[in-house]
Amino acid sequence: MRLTTMTDYAIRLLMYVGQHPERLCTISEVAHAYEISEAHLMKITHQLGMSGWLETVRGKGGGMRLAAAPADINLGGVVRSVEPDFFIVDCLASDTVCLLTGNCQLTGIISGALHSFLQYLDRYTLADLLAPATESTAQIWPVTFGKRPSVSAC
Amino acid sequence: MRLTTMTDYAIRLLMYVGQHPERLCTISEVAHAYEISEAHLMKITHQLGMSGWLETVRGKGGGMRLAAAPADINLGGVVRSVEPDFFIVDCLASDTVCLLTGNCQLTGIISGALHSFLQYLDRYTLADLLAPATESTAQIWPVTFGKRPSVSAC
Repeated sequence: MRLTTMTDYAIRLLMYVGQHPERLCTISEVAHAYEISEAHLMKITHQLGMSGWLETVRGKGGGMRLAAAPADINLGGVVRSVEPDFFIVDCLASDTVCLLTGNCQLTGIISGALHSFLQYLDRYTLADLLAPATESTAQIWPVTFGKRPSVSAC
Repeated sequence: MRLTTMTDYAIRLLMYVGQHPERLCTISEVAHAYEISEAHLMKITHQLGMSGWLETVRGKGGGMRLAAAPADINLGGVVRSVEPDFFIVDCLASDTVCLLTGNCQLTGIISGALHSFLQYLDRYTLADLLAPATESTAQIWPVTFGKRPSVSAC
């Protein structure tokens, strides 16, 4: 289960820009820092601008900055605004016809699980992402997922 | 954000077999019912068998049946056993090197949200999926996701 690359990079783009509050950041430098294409980042920047998370300044010396304080950029809100859809299973898509006989509760239960996922993200903002890791979040990886990936920074 | 097709079909396969407890079901009939390939279903059946959710009987007149009562087939358990990974964002993958400077709390927060998602599914079993829809689950779709897909059955 994954968020799209679009949302993944959108979060990281906001983190990068949030780490440089003293100046405008350019697409070129973020593309270089994350080793991703400028074309991809331009789409993401545009989307984040449309959603009110980023401001862009055109022209020579231009770039982007956060449109609000990191504490006012809600993580759940960012994910909802960038992720193209939340069709966790096919039958959540509006153009799907169920081939099972009779009613089932799959969509209701999956929607409830998705709601829990997004509600959890709603508790956090970009300011939390940028804060030094604490015991409470750094060790949250539950044992039921198996071995925690060996990534220490990010 | 989506589960893989593998997990999506695994849930539906269990639902189909659970709807026919009086007999063995064949891959051919499930493939026909869902309009998906037999090859794909064979892989899913094998995985569900390995995970202890399905039993298969070989030979003429063979097929598959649930390996436990629907009330003992936990939805969270099924998703954990079939979904290839839960790398919601790239930096949860073990082969990823973070390109951001300094620590961030993204993995901890995303892992917490994923934990909430799976914990919600842990409350339900295949028996709940097969039960007639009730007010509590049929109308759980939160308004924050926008318009609810117009799927009435499934």
